[in-house]
Amino acid sequence: MMAKSANEDQLFIGIDGGGTKCRATIYSAQHGVLGTGLGGPANPLHGLERTLESIMVSTQLAMRDAGLQLETIHQVYAGLGLAGVNLPSLYEKITEWEHPFKQMFLTTDLHTACIGAHEGGDGAVIITGTGSCGFSHVKGQSVNYGGHGFALGDKGSGAWMGLEAIKAVLVELDGLGPQTALTQIMKNHFNAVNAMDIAEQMAGQPSSSYAKLARYVFDAAHQGDVIALAIVKDGAAYVSQLAHRLLANNPPRLSMIGGLAEPLNKWLDPEIAKRVEMPKQPPEMGAIYFAQQSVLEQDQKVAL
Amino acid sequence: MMAKSANEDQLFIGIDGGGTKCRATIYSAQHGVLGTGLGGPANPLHGLERTLESIMVSTQLAMRDAGLQLETIHQVYAGLGLAGVNLPSLYEKITEWEHPFKQMFLTTDLHTACIGAHEGGDGAVIITGTGSCGFSHVKGQSVNYGGHGFALGDKGSGAWMGLEAIKAVLVELDGLGPQTALTQIMKNHFNAVNAMDIAEQMAGQPSSSYAKLARYVFDAAHQGDVIALAIVKDGAAYVSQLAHRLLANNPPRLSMIGGLAEPLNKWLDPEIAKRVEMPKQPPEMGAIYFAQQSVLEQDQKVAL
Repeated sequence: MMAKSANEDQLFIGIDGGGTKCRATIYSAQHGVLGTGLGGPANPLHGLERTLESIMVSTQLAMRDAGLQLETIHQVYAGLGLAGVNLPSLYEKITEWEHPFKQMFLTTDLHTACIGAHEGGDGAVIITGTGSCGFSHVKGQSVNYGGHGFALGDKGSGAWMGLEAIKAVLVELDGLGPQTALTQIMKNHFNAVNAMDIAEQMAGQPSSSYAKLARYVFDAAHQGDVIALAIVKDGAAYVSQLAHRLLANNPPRLSMIGGLAEPLNKWLDPEIAKRVEMPKQPPEMGAIYFAQQSVLEQDQKVAL
Repeated sequence: MMAKSANEDQLFIGIDGGGTKCRATIYSAQHGVLGTGLGGPANPLHGLERTLESIMVSTQLAMRDAGLQLETIHQVYAGLGLAGVNLPSLYEKITEWEHPFKQMFLTTDLHTACIGAHEGGDGAVIITGTGSCGFSHVKGQSVNYGGHGFALGDKGSGAWMGLEAIKAVLVELDGLGPQTALTQIMKNHFNAVNAMDIAEQMAGQPSSSYAKLARYVFDAAHQGDVIALAIVKDGAAYVSQLAHRLLANNPPRLSMIGGLAEPLNKWLDPEIAKRVEMPKQPPEMGAIYFAQQSVLEQDQKVAL
């Protein structure tokens, strides 16, 4: 008997929730990608209600884009990749949600990013955007490193670079530390005369505000600024170490994802840089593969 | 003609607002300290309403403690030292307050701490508690350094030490950094098995929660832990630099105030350590001196 999930026209939706947006993709084995939708923030750590709303918005837009009637959603298998669901309490809350799908399969955004990057196969990913973390999935074993959040973790990320830059600038403006080209750059950026002007504008800002400053650090590093170089090298050294740690799990492939993947590349340990391969598919496709695999496993159990 | 403020029985109240409590002291030249009162948090940067309420609570308690009728408050000159009032907008808001005092004189908590430490005379202070900053008042010139707030400044403070310790522990728990005795200490403190347990408990915590961890860093440093030693030495080096910067303004005295003043002392540049003198009076007495001086200057202007 053929597994139900192997129906070529079975519909799947892959959903990738993130801190700023939520992406949904409708797919069938027969027709490939049928439609996509974009919703608002969907990080359950920052609000469960908002996350579920963004998931529904992106789902409805994707259904419309695919030319499907909204009630068809009850026949669609959903794969969801969301931050924070490695915490059992959050995982439970979301599985308790009265979702409209035929069935919902939930995992972390890291897991779906990894499955996507390696087109359903084993592998490892490093994500360096606003935050930073590493994940590998090899022979059924998932492990992750980093991703502990802004200020106490996420070294090598955009937010970390922005924070380190601000720290160096404030120290110089107080006459307590070495000169850096970043000081003039930040004074211009913040239209600031003194350290307090900058400190006031950055106080209580979220990590995304710090991440926006990362490009200045790369610019100054390329121009040879010693402080900026030290920040970039320190961040890249951490990311390289993260990569070595992941490679110790023997993933067949390693990809880097996120806004800093490209600018960081030239600063990585050369051994690591040459191991990094392009992600094959985006995380929302990873969420689709995850749903497909989950349906298949489930059907195999039923068939036994 | 003798200045009115020189009346020996004129009442003064000195108020020192802080992030966790507000202290008030009633004083007259004739009788010295008449009463004291303790109120809740009074940092206007964290809420103006709450600050004014805490000021009133501490004032009423001090009046009661002094055996004075509450309506006597209209005859009392008040000196107030509050964080954040170096920002013109916040200074204005508080001066617009319909206070119950005969007259109110407002300055920063740093200024009153400095006046108190040197019993009304010129000098410099370094405050290292939850946060860190430096201030000097010499020949009518006030200057301050640091105090830019948690995560982006306040190096050498308790919160900074706690954060650096957590960062090191998370990196070790991920297998990405050197061993440190702090890891077992923090695992016990947080009843944690892995990095995520600690990251979750510290995410979004205020600087005071990080500052509570500083004592572990000193303990581990005393036991020779290399990572803890590096944190303490790095923090102390910054505080020493802050002191050198302040001494360049030629203050006759230098004091250190706050919970880290004592434990940090032995790690300071020896040249600095031997310059540090005990504060003569607490900040609320500094606020009284400030009010006395302000009344005197005002009367002198009137007399001219």
